[in-house]
Amino acid sequence: MRILITGAGGFIGRKLTERLLADGSVDGRSIEHVTAADLFGLEQLADDPRLTKTALDITDHVATAQLIAPGFDLVVHLAAIVSANAEEDFDLGYKVNMDGTRYILEGLRALGTTPRLIFASTLAVFGGPVPAAPALIGDDFHLTPQTSYGTQKAACELMVADYTRKGFIDGRSLRLPTIVVRPGKPNKAASTFASSIIREPLAGQEAICPVDLDSTMYILSPRRVIDAFVKTAELPSEAFGQVRSLTLPGIAVRIGDALDALRRIAGDAVADRVQQVPDPKIQKIVDGWPYNFASKRALAMGYAADSSIDEIIEAHIADELGGKIAG
Amino acid sequence: MRILITGAGGFIGRKLTERLLADGSVDGRSIEHVTAADLFGLEQLADDPRLTKTALDITDHVATAQLIAPGFDLVVHLAAIVSANAEEDFDLGYKVNMDGTRYILEGLRALGTTPRLIFASTLAVFGGPVPAAPALIGDDFHLTPQTSYGTQKAACELMVADYTRKGFIDGRSLRLPTIVVRPGKPNKAASTFASSIIREPLAGQEAICPVDLDSTMYILSPRRVIDAFVKTAELPSEAFGQVRSLTLPGIAVRIGDALDALRRIAGDAVADRVQQVPDPKIQKIVDGWPYNFASKRALAMGYAADSSIDEIIEAHIADELGGKIAG
Repeated sequence: MRILITGAGGFIGRKLTERLLADGSVDGRSIEHVTAADLFGLEQLADDPRLTKTALDITDHVATAQLIAPGFDLVVHLAAIVSANAEEDFDLGYKVNMDGTRYILEGLRALGTTPRLIFASTLAVFGGPVPAAPALIGDDFHLTPQTSYGTQKAACELMVADYTRKGFIDGRSLRLPTIVVRPGKPNKAASTFASSIIREPLAGQEAICPVDLDSTMYILSPRRVIDAFVKTAELPSEAFGQVRSLTLPGIAVRIGDALDALRRIAGDAVADRVQQVPDPKIQKIVDGWPYNFASKRALAMGYAADSSIDEIIEAHIADELGGKIAG
Repeated sequence: MRILITGAGGFIGRKLTERLLADGSVDGRSIEHVTAADLFGLEQLADDPRLTKTALDITDHVATAQLIAPGFDLVVHLAAIVSANAEEDFDLGYKVNMDGTRYILEGLRALGTTPRLIFASTLAVFGGPVPAAPALIGDDFHLTPQTSYGTQKAACELMVADYTRKGFIDGRSLRLPTIVVRPGKPNKAASTFASSIIREPLAGQEAICPVDLDSTMYILSPRRVIDAFVKTAELPSEAFGQVRSLTLPGIAVRIGDALDALRRIAGDAVADRVQQVPDPKIQKIVDGWPYNFASKRALAMGYAADSSIDEIIEAHIADELGGKIAG
């Protein structure tokens, strides 16, 4: 089995690449080769005889076509410009998130082998008027994104479904909740603070919380999201049927509750490293993200959410900090 | 007020151009100029000192930008490759329906004047698993198109909403039911038969019905759809709010009932000109089109459907045949 991962230099891409190489197989099929493509971050991937690291700018139609041309059985398309960046630079967002995805789709179509594609989408495909909590947003609720990022992802979900219907690919789009706790450094995503306020204090650094404590976000841990990608790579096409997009189950966490959990788990000295510094721009974007999802379809398909914010923080301490908190 | 109509050579474009010139104003603002753009059909538009007819291939980015550059207050974007054609020629469909619309959006954005845009979308944005009749598909049901045409229109609806949110345009997307009775000749749309089986017999010609009599379609008359475009041109932006797409109200008509109405109105000699010749390809596409819509939002906004198939047939006889049936 030959696998291509775009955006493999990002943290999900790196974790997924490492996981697949460690597993050695997908759905019982041995992995011969993984191509990790990105513009940045690939140096952090450990060398492996089965791994090729490739620089790829997905806005380069020809380069993308050439990369795909030798053929792949599974492609995980993670490469994207994140939300705040796409909001800031309208043209770049469309170029990378929309056109880039189309180049991937066209490259796969040209293979003529109906390769499997997992497209990383986002819960930011929702955003317009939604049922107010405690009512829930179901799997058949319409998409009314309130960011360009969400718009681009929603439009690409439609294309993934169309290319699948035509038999060009076997596509599946996963709508990711906000991933918390992301390892590494803050990025340009409007949601980046949700990881920073846990990650930085645990590592002995100060962090800023730009939204008020009653802000609530729908989140999923790195552990669970990697499990979700692996599961998606293994499910048969029929499991998705005509609807190729799936809202991953997460948990709704109030920011104040996340900080309380941090205090409970790591103590006052750690929790006191978080400062409230309101940023109306971030607050406005976060307010536009619903958190009241009923991901019934994914749960019925066997996808799982984290049980609590405590579990999420503890997983971060175990996986990223070797169990050690900078007290 | 300066108006641009793309696809103005098509029957909706021609009727809308004629209607606007006859009205002389939109929402109390006098119409100084209408630019009718298309590759075909413009010769059928009567000359008018306020009317310019322009050849436009919307897949030509530069030509589209140049056409829009002098500035318009209202653009009605009708130009498209129809459903069966987009299904047959995948690349052409994306080029015209997706890229072409994006060139229009980019041209309008470049003006910096937030012009009003009416984008002609389609009920073919629906199509995947939907609530079975008599349950109804509401205004917040998700889009799962089962044709490339529906996919392209759904993706463009998302872009219209995003460009509107950013303040680049004041966009509105109208999801059109199947328009029956279309005047003129059959086209490549999979739905074209629904007009042919009424139009041709009334004009003394044979017609073929390629679907079974129990097939049901959600339809709207030319009269009502033109009213809907005019109404949409006049509504303030706030009437649409965050949701820029609107499912126009139509009526669900069983094909057998349409033929019975034709027999009732025009007699046996006319109705006997329709022959049943099943076409599994057309049947499959039509079966994929839901007809059980509850267009509550549009009705609340004052949009109206036809009262019956009889009204639709009689309007066609009055508007297109001068009241005369070829008995």
